[in-house]
Amino acid sequence: MQPIMSAGEIHGFLDKEFPQVHADGKVLTVLEVASGRLTMRFDPAERHLRPGDTISGPAMVMLADVAAYAVILAHIGPVALAVTTSLNINFLRKPKLVPLVCDCRILKLGKRLAVIDAVVTQEGQPGPVAQATATYSIPPRT
Amino acid sequence: MQPIMSAGEIHGFLDKEFPQVHADGKVLTVLEVASGRLTMRFDPAERHLRPGDTISGPAMVMLADVAAYAVILAHIGPVALAVTTSLNINFLRKPKLVPLVCDCRILKLGKRLAVIDAVVTQEGQPGPVAQATATYSIPPRT
Amino acid sequence: MQPIMSAGEIHGFLDKEFPQVHADGKVLTVLEVASGRLTMRFDPAERHLRPGDTISGPAMVMLADVAAYAVILAHIGPVALAVTTSLNINFLRKPKLVPLVCDCRILKLGKRLAVIDAVVTQEGQPGPVAQATATYSIPPRT
Amino acid sequence: MQPIMSAGEIHGFLDKEFPQVHADGKVLTVLEVASGRLTMRFDPAERHLRPGDTISGPAMVMLADVAAYAVILAHIGPVALAVTTSLNINFLRKPKLVPLVCDCRILKLGKRLAVIDAVVTQEGQPGPVAQATATYSIPPRT
Repeated sequence: MQPIMSAGEIHGFLDKEFPQVHADGKVLTVLEVASGRLTMRFDPAERHLRPGDTISGPAMVMLADVAAYAVILAHIGPVALAVTTSLNINFLRKPKLVPLVCDCRILKLGKRLAVIDAVVTQEGQPGPVAQATATYSIPPRT
Repeated sequence: MQPIMSAGEIHGFLDKEFPQVHADGKVLTVLEVASGRLTMRFDPAERHLRPGDTISGPAMVMLADVAAYAVILAHIGPVALAVTTSLNINFLRKPKLVPLVCDCRILKLGKRLAVIDAVVTQEGQPGPVAQATATYSIPPRT
Repeated sequence: MQPIMSAGEIHGFLDKEFPQVHADGKVLTVLEVASGRLTMRFDPAERHLRPGDTISGPAMVMLADVAAYAVILAHIGPVALAVTTSLNINFLRKPKLVPLVCDCRILKLGKRLAVIDAVVTQEGQPGPVAQATATYSIPPRT
Repeated sequence: MQPIMSAGEIHGFLDKEFPQVHADGKVLTVLEVASGRLTMRFDPAERHLRPGDTISGPAMVMLADVAAYAVILAHIGPVALAVTTSLNINFLRKPKLVPLVCDCRILKLGKRLAVIDAVVTQEGQPGPVAQATATYSIPPRT
């Protein structure tokens, strides 16, 4: 399973597809694309914060969802548009106000369904801050 | 299981706890509180939209999470601070650009864990647009 | 959304498809089929028990999975074979050694995916003993 | 995070706690225990099979649940009794009639909650046959 898009190509596609994500400054950066994997960094903006110097749960969901979408995109190309059908997330540790890194791994990339595992980590934490599994419906490819 | 906070009291608490949710205008309104239940309306702002005239997945997660948090709050009061430990969401139909309504039901309200079912609907849709189950850890009450 | 199979027809189909479920005596009974809904009773056998006079978690998963499968079957007929793609279950209360009743509700019945909500109850319990959401892939129908 | 029980000690504990799992012959074997990890093999018996020469979904749930329970046990010892509070499983590929291997990894081992990631593989398959995340409530330790 080899990726067919580079980090730069994925950035270009996400900027077009999810313009509102970067509406007030770039927060998501693809760090690496490899066979069946993708790593994305998230630099939280003010609107992603919560009282208590932490990052909101929905912001972590957004990161896991966009990163999982990007790893599929990287392997099937920008033609097909996947749609998130379900997402299960475990919040494991209270995130600090430093960037989050999301490592995505393709568990299955079928003709109709893709399942992605996403682990969110942060420097200075003794373990992952969140783990998510997301399922995507892939439209028929011709 | 009787609620001990009114819709107005929940609004006051959420405004203090989640100020950033209403940073650019009020988007969440408690419509009803009843035994083991709470209904919340979400009027999406520009930042919750996605291309294709739809509402983003993370915005629906935020709605389900805040509404589920509010139904717990309504039944145990503002003293204890529950923390989301996991959330599982199914995206069932593409939402339209009209308000979302989230109906929450307490499945379990234990001493340490609460589990909430949340169903998100929208006028003009043939069925729910999303369904979520969320788990909260409840700190020891004294 | 009207069912097109009766309880009796579903029993006949399950007996053929899941013979091992009833290998040592009938444990599953469809109680009712209605628009978008199905209710199934589970009379646990010795192999479903756990020390502490309770019913095993995997037995409750089996009940939720077969009942959710049956409600799809009831609405699309015995031709198409759905496959479980994911299942999320919350164990809410310790089950007692009495029959379990599973109420299934179709959240979505699309061309390719079905999502079912299943709530498991038991006489004498103050609330549900388990809640599950299951997703099924539906093969192309011709 | 170092394990404090050996594979042999875990076998002894499971035989006492889950006698019905091995009622008709030993099906579960701990292959390895390491820091934050445990690997368990499952040799399916006739009652775990499904028509079409495959292994039932609930049997895979049982494997993931017992293996996840065992990795917690290995790290906190046999005193505390953890209870499964939720389990999310993705069925990725149709299993064949050969043994399953479940690799468990502790995502979080807190005072009250443990979250475990479990990946089920099988020789001759191009990727995992199932992936589960399970949450356990840990009783107060004294």
